Amino acid sequence: MSAGGGKPELVSTVAGLREVLDSARARGLRIGLVPTMGALHEGHLSLVRASRAECQLTVVSIYVNPTQFGPREDLEKYPRTLAADLAALAACGVELVFAPANAEMYPAGFDTWVEVGAAARPLEGECRPGHFRGVATVVLKLLNQVRPDAAYFGQKDYQQALVIRRMVEDLSVPVTVRVCPTVREPDGLAMSSRNRYLDAHERRRALVLWQSLSLAAGLVRQGERDAKAIVERMKALISAASGAAIDYVALVDPESLEPVARVERKTLAALAVRIGATRLIDNMLIE
Amino acid sequence: MSAGGGKPELVSTVAGLREVLDSARARGLRIGLVPTMGALHEGHLSLVRASRAECQLTVVSIYVNPTQFGPREDLEKYPRTLAADLAALAACGVELVFAPANAEMYPAGFDTWVEVGAAARPLEGECRPGHFRGVATVVLKLLNQVRPDAAYFGQKDYQQALVIRRMVEDLSVPVTVRVCPTVREPDGLAMSSRNRYLDAHERRRALVLWQSLSLAAGLVRQGERDAKAIVERMKALISAASGAAIDYVALVDPESLEPVARVERKTLAALAVRIGATRLIDNMLIE
Repeated sequence: MSAGGGKPELVSTVAGLREVLDSARARGLRIGLVPTMGALHEGHLSLVRASRAECQLTVVSIYVNPTQFGPREDLEKYPRTLAADLAALAACGVELVFAPANAEMYPAGFDTWVEVGAAARPLEGECRPGHFRGVATVVLKLLNQVRPDAAYFGQKDYQQALVIRRMVEDLSVPVTVRVCPTVREPDGLAMSSRNRYLDAHERRRALVLWQSLSLAAGLVRQGERDAKAIVERMKALISAASGAAIDYVALVDPESLEPVARVERKTLAALAVRIGATRLIDNMLIE
Repeated sequence: MSAGGGKPELVSTVAGLREVLDSARARGLRIGLVPTMGALHEGHLSLVRASRAECQLTVVSIYVNPTQFGPREDLEKYPRTLAADLAALAACGVELVFAPANAEMYPAGFDTWVEVGAAARPLEGECRPGHFRGVATVVLKLLNQVRPDAAYFGQKDYQQALVIRRMVEDLSVPVTVRVCPTVREPDGLAMSSRNRYLDAHERRRALVLWQSLSLAAGLVRQGERDAKAIVERMKALISAASGAAIDYVALVDPESLEPVARVERKTLAALAVRIGATRLIDNMLIE
């Protein structure tokens, strides 16, 4: 495939996608999938680069999946920036973009859902009922549509990656799941399409997510082991920022997502915080 | 592949299966899957023949899937006849049999389920809560493990075929679903692995399923259009057989499975009847 510069081919139907990919598969190309909701940033592009390093053909899907949004969430205002996304992907050398319409993904009569159990229940699952059902269902659809050898996800959505790993293993989906490190702004804020919602004041306050994760890591480094004490310190830091409302702050086992009482082994610090009207998540693995 | 006579290769792990199938796929062979729970009869073998007519490699899975049985159902006593099954498949020229253990299909931590909505709710879904969740989940697993070009199901399990079609379409599973006609004993009884449970007396009484379906078709042929009247006549016939207990008798739309009031177009007559301790189902499309 081209080494970059050319515009990616844009297909919007599963039939069109299969035509291109069947021919690629027949030529023995290794196929990588980067599923996105568009509004691409460096986090997404790092996934694209990871795919291009391992695969001969990288497919980026751009689809704002309605079934993973709750009724009072930001589906309507979620940023749609297709022209800019295509330009960014062209610069990365992406060959193929799949951008289906809702009618292609959820035609009339659609009635099948993928439900992951324990991994989908706490944290985001508790705050956003049905979210991971929508994520698991659309990702499985995309995997079946593209049939990639590998699919790439960001660690910023840690629980999402865990849910997808669980689903892929349980349903014997023949794909390698890769989870790539969170990409951050120079000051530490995790890249997110939703950062666009923040005004200048909110952007500064949004740093409390990263600061509280760093605080947790620092406390552990200094010998603190009591999870409750660490969480209290994180919450106090966040609450001190005006206009920041905590959805959850948790120290959990990285596999089971169950809360830990003491930080004795690798632990995930995870949090969701609303900065004004914008809900942001972040996480850090603390060794 | 061989034209018949040789014993099929028996694999019990997904890894072993993929090894054989990757090589078949690399040679460009069209792959057919016939998912079964073993205790094979002519109904299954008709699916095998349909697959062999269309595909160069036919995989028969033999797996008594525990998750589609309710807690008070016949999982424990369900007939297991592997040696006879392999002999029957060898005679049909089947090359590959996949017979996994429970630990291979549902290892510790398994926690993902496929849920089909409306198609899975009435009839069998109402009598056997969770049944179609188990069916959809295991069939999706088998489809992902084998990755066949086509998969073959019997019309005897009409609702199951409908649920699987729905799932395959909704989740964009790249497989052609074929539904083959019900195979019957000379007297009309639909072939079923569960017919083995019947003693000689019950075997005679079991004919009421076929008789009541034939009655319904006859009444429609004679001009009867009132669904309630037809169902009443079917129920009366079944109730007249000693030791036959009705789970349901229904005239429904063949696509939506919703009850019809009048038989004005193609209609599905479906029923489940317990003959002694044995629960049997059957159905007929009435034009």
